[in-house]
Amino acid sequence: MFKINDNYLKLPGSYLFSTIAKKVNQFTVENPDKKVIRLGIGDVTQPLAPAIIDTLHHAVDEMAKAETFHGYAPDLGYEFLRTAIRDNDYAARGCDIQADEIFVSDGAKSDSSNIQEIFSLDNKIAVCDPVYPVYVDSNVMAGRTGTYDPATECWSNVIYMPCTAENNFAPEFPEKDPDLIYLCFPNNPTGAMITKDQLQAWIDYANKIGAIIIYDAAYEAYISEENVPHTIYECEGARTCAIELKSFSKNAGFTGTRLGYTVIPKDIKSNGVMLHSLWARRHGTKYNGAPYIIQRAGEAVYSEAGKAQLKEQVAYYMNNAKVIMEGLKNAGYEVYGGVNAPYIWLKTPNQMTSWEFFDYLLEKANVVGTPGSGFGPSGEGYFRLTAFGNYENTVEAVERIVRL
Amino acid sequence: MFKINDNYLKLPGSYLFSTIAKKVNQFTVENPDKKVIRLGIGDVTQPLAPAIIDTLHHAVDEMAKAETFHGYAPDLGYEFLRTAIRDNDYAARGCDIQADEIFVSDGAKSDSSNIQEIFSLDNKIAVCDPVYPVYVDSNVMAGRTGTYDPATECWSNVIYMPCTAENNFAPEFPEKDPDLIYLCFPNNPTGAMITKDQLQAWIDYANKIGAIIIYDAAYEAYISEENVPHTIYECEGARTCAIELKSFSKNAGFTGTRLGYTVIPKDIKSNGVMLHSLWARRHGTKYNGAPYIIQRAGEAVYSEAGKAQLKEQVAYYMNNAKVIMEGLKNAGYEVYGGVNAPYIWLKTPNQMTSWEFFDYLLEKANVVGTPGSGFGPSGEGYFRLTAFGNYENTVEAVERIVRL
Repeated sequence: MFKINDNYLKLPGSYLFSTIAKKVNQFTVENPDKKVIRLGIGDVTQPLAPAIIDTLHHAVDEMAKAETFHGYAPDLGYEFLRTAIRDNDYAARGCDIQADEIFVSDGAKSDSSNIQEIFSLDNKIAVCDPVYPVYVDSNVMAGRTGTYDPATECWSNVIYMPCTAENNFAPEFPEKDPDLIYLCFPNNPTGAMITKDQLQAWIDYANKIGAIIIYDAAYEAYISEENVPHTIYECEGARTCAIELKSFSKNAGFTGTRLGYTVIPKDIKSNGVMLHSLWARRHGTKYNGAPYIIQRAGEAVYSEAGKAQLKEQVAYYMNNAKVIMEGLKNAGYEVYGGVNAPYIWLKTPNQMTSWEFFDYLLEKANVVGTPGSGFGPSGEGYFRLTAFGNYENTVEAVERIVRL
Repeated sequence: MFKINDNYLKLPGSYLFSTIAKKVNQFTVENPDKKVIRLGIGDVTQPLAPAIIDTLHHAVDEMAKAETFHGYAPDLGYEFLRTAIRDNDYAARGCDIQADEIFVSDGAKSDSSNIQEIFSLDNKIAVCDPVYPVYVDSNVMAGRTGTYDPATECWSNVIYMPCTAENNFAPEFPEKDPDLIYLCFPNNPTGAMITKDQLQAWIDYANKIGAIIIYDAAYEAYISEENVPHTIYECEGARTCAIELKSFSKNAGFTGTRLGYTVIPKDIKSNGVMLHSLWARRHGTKYNGAPYIIQRAGEAVYSEAGKAQLKEQVAYYMNNAKVIMEGLKNAGYEVYGGVNAPYIWLKTPNQMTSWEFFDYLLEKANVVGTPGSGFGPSGEGYFRLTAFGNYENTVEAVERIVRL
């Protein structure tokens, strides 16, 4: 008689963004006349850049002829894309990462949830709190997190590193040593960034205790300040302890196009076994590569035209961030983020809980945001707005919120 | 101190097709003058059909304008594609499968390796022998297969169901009851098919013992005979015990375009919990959907033009199958498959092992096939050739083999 993976039953409720989608759907059905503005889920709104569109058309044409048709991709991604990534994201910043240490995938969500598979079930994870739900949920499904306490909203076998206004949203080293440390900078959801010195301290700490840092750099393109790292490999010693996850979703608008990559340096070893080999084996066995035409689109992201167009796109969203920041500040809100990240993290007014403020904003301003508590217990009392809307909607949403 | 998932270390050698790729690469480097013909890996060679190309271009243009741009896809796939699948692959055959029981993915390889995640680690799997390596390897990685015995090439906790010429390549019910049964028809690698009555007996057996059948129907489009099932849901009772995996790789040439789907009927339950809910949760948490433009391409597969063009493409490959079958038969080879499947399964001549015949064919005829033993111990002494080459190469490869 078959049995299910009971760990799934431990997950409280549904995935955060599914819950939000259901609530918003219900509201729009009940209020068909209301124009809802969505600044909740981190989905982009601007179209793919012209350089990417041209490349996609060209790649589609290649698929139409036997001579240029592409079947199964190389397990770990096409050389042309891995080389472009190495040159632009690493070599150009003086980082020693080779093309064969880069694994192309269908996105950072898949990678960030799958990466735990190559580690022992005994390993203990540490996460920032609040945090992107996928890190914890994927570990729950694997059975690594112990039991859930609804009162504290914490898992018994997860180390939480609170990130609140009190510590400027920068995690502190935990009291007990973790084995796997999830870090995300620029941060989702708080929009916070840490300095290169702060990240260096994490690398030194990880190397000292023999932990792995899983570094999610999905929002790197939004960094505007100096002295903050664009990749963890800017730090000394990262090659022996750090895995980096990158996405094309936010820098190039690939949320519906799907492309990402993971870097695993060959220097990370356990008893002589390279983590790189395990991840390569996972890719080879459980994945068949990103579509050829999408990998070509990824290459176009690094073309001269692509880079120029995407710089404009990022600036467009960051202008939205400024509109939100300034509008809410002027209205008396306590706001964070929005400088090196497309997320604005605000303190809910009048001691409202995160979900109370979600309902309030949806009903009174018809604006959708994300409740901070959905990202973890220390997110309670906070709320996330994204800069990924279009400009007109963003301005209108802010005006509506300010009028409340 | 972090630890790795030791189960990965139990995997003997590398993934079959990676090993073949390495051997062929080495041969071509050492013999640059030789024209190698690849009838090994099941990769297609014909370009995407015109109806699919047109749709891809149109979808790319949609991504170029804010009004028609598509960001994150619905967790389980776009309604337009799920409806097309339901109508064409199920309703048209009188099968009761609803659109919301269909989960769109990036391909059957991912699905067939990920599906085991929603089951208990205690569950015992049964596989045909020989078998597509991914079913077993993904269970090895999860820790479900016990220990590997190099002498027998078997895992201690896997039930093997031999499929050889003696039983006409149809598996028999195992002596001990399994929890999860992997079946693939038309079969990879043997090219065999079973009748509807035979499949019905499997459904009855699974319902009786409380097992789940994971039915891989990736090669369904190649069925040419009557009275063989195109989907497992043609059988009575399949809704309470069968999961079906489908791919767009072989019927539409999507090996490098990546699209597939999995069907989980809502009637499959364990203590009241629907497997459907677990898989939906996995999709929502660990996956972000197939690219919009690729899902549109999938929809085009079901258009009138698409269906007509793909019927021709399948006929093209099946003509190759006929060329291989007849050529080898005339040369005295013992050959199987090739009637309802694009695979020809042959007995190696002169008591050669599968890998001996692989090397022999590569060196003497410069033809690449797949050693039967790579699919399991009962594949020893067999060899797989695919009909997915182009016609000219297929004819030449057969001529070279016949001349040996």
